[in-house]
Amino acid sequence: MAKINMALCQMSVEEGKELNIKEAESLIREAASNGIDMAVLPEMFNCPYDNKYFPEYAEGYPGQTTMAISNLAKELGIYIVAGSIPEKDGDSIYNTCYVFGRDGECIGKHRKMHLFDIDVKGRITFKESDVLGSGDQCTVFETEFCNIGVAICYDMRFPELMRLMAVKGGAKVIIVPAAFNMTTGPAHWSTTCKTRALDNQVYFIAVSPARNIKSSYTAYGHSIIADPWGNIIMEADEKEDILYGEIDLEMVEKVRQELPLLQHRRRDVYSLNYKHDGMEY
Amino acid sequence: MAKINMALCQMSVEEGKELNIKEAESLIREAASNGIDMAVLPEMFNCPYDNKYFPEYAEGYPGQTTMAISNLAKELGIYIVAGSIPEKDGDSIYNTCYVFGRDGECIGKHRKMHLFDIDVKGRITFKESDVLGSGDQCTVFETEFCNIGVAICYDMRFPELMRLMAVKGGAKVIIVPAAFNMTTGPAHWSTTCKTRALDNQVYFIAVSPARNIKSSYTAYGHSIIADPWGNIIMEADEKEDILYGEIDLEMVEKVRQELPLLQHRRRDVYSLNYKHDGMEY
Repeated sequence: MAKINMALCQMSVEEGKELNIKEAESLIREAASNGIDMAVLPEMFNCPYDNKYFPEYAEGYPGQTTMAISNLAKELGIYIVAGSIPEKDGDSIYNTCYVFGRDGECIGKHRKMHLFDIDVKGRITFKESDVLGSGDQCTVFETEFCNIGVAICYDMRFPELMRLMAVKGGAKVIIVPAAFNMTTGPAHWSTTCKTRALDNQVYFIAVSPARNIKSSYTAYGHSIIADPWGNIIMEADEKEDILYGEIDLEMVEKVRQELPLLQHRRRDVYSLNYKHDGMEY
Repeated sequence: MAKINMALCQMSVEEGKELNIKEAESLIREAASNGIDMAVLPEMFNCPYDNKYFPEYAEGYPGQTTMAISNLAKELGIYIVAGSIPEKDGDSIYNTCYVFGRDGECIGKHRKMHLFDIDVKGRITFKESDVLGSGDQCTVFETEFCNIGVAICYDMRFPELMRLMAVKGGAKVIIVPAAFNMTTGPAHWSTTCKTRALDNQVYFIAVSPARNIKSSYTAYGHSIIADPWGNIIMEADEKEDILYGEIDLEMVEKVRQELPLLQHRRRDVYSLNYKHDGMEY
């Protein structure tokens, strides 16, 4: 159980929910034919990333998208980290990742906790909080391999949440469906992914939509896997593609032993409080 | 007061305390002749970085090294972040950074908090804790420009301490005298510096000794300045050199406004506890 075969599905997201679900299915079927344990979809894989589309594409749970993905996980006997979709809950909409196990059961759900409200003059302005609500949970799910943390895009910019996944949730892998853009992508994407992997001694996997220059928000692409030593072991370009990567859990143990960062934290000087359980980590 | 002229003195450290103090003085005098506000020396600038030398080179405060640097700060009217030296206090030795103001007064002191105990098989093994004691304070000093955090080498691997400097100490610049080696340097140095700057929306300055291949511990060099957008604005090679850099505090404000990461932290979900004041940040 020391290795996980991953497929990062860097799919092209278009207008039309049905079309996007079909494309996701098609990529996951192709990946599964290559013998994987887990497929990962990008952020907002069923909906163009734009506030104006979120209410129209949003669905409750279970809904059209999650039922299709759940059925696929069961049929193929693989884990699917279903990127994210606009999730409707009462009057609110969330940017939500559902995770399905090999039997199709939902084994994890993460609502994006940090909303993407930025205004880089003349380059990129976006305000998710105009339309979306935010989650408030550190999300880790269990597999027969190890615990795996999941967060969404802008969440990965916050070292506190990444750290909690490792020290509270025992994550050895962190998976982040994400859509950086043509400003923040080239500037920050790979550096941030590498450092989160290195600091927390985990494999860090971020999966972007393919770049679609017709869309209002142009995703950077470059889906990536960084290992616990901070090496980038796989990185896509900007086009639609499936990236295959092997997660070696022995490498996690080796790095944690040789460079024991998690052990060397000075909890007598500082600690992380998680408000939901009132515990210090 | 929106700009700070910095000199990063990447000096070559040899055997002989006297010799090292003279070399530091010579570099700082040269830097000062170019009109700087602040000079920074590397980790263990008066002593080869090796456990066997620390007891012999250690001094109490005030001592030979700190008096020389304090006098120089006063004479030149500049700030000096005096890298680090082995500091003797009773029976203990610490890896300590002293900071002197324009009048030569000591305005900050940081004892390395995270000791460097690593064992990367066949590549680099070091155990500071065999000889050194550890500090337990988050250190920020005040200047007429802004608050500035200071930490030492391995401390920079811990996002909690870096974060505390920004959110508790209000640091807009973090300075880290450091000596990464030929294994961890190429693998982790620039990535870590960039991410700390970006995450905490500060200028991040790390100053290494020059590479000395005759020494038992070979420093990586590559003294560096990263700006709050995560750009490397200056990076030395491995040789002895003075690196001049301008810190633009308006850039800090601009990035904090456009990409408000510090503001977007979810303190309702997590917080950082600092044990010395019992406060949550």
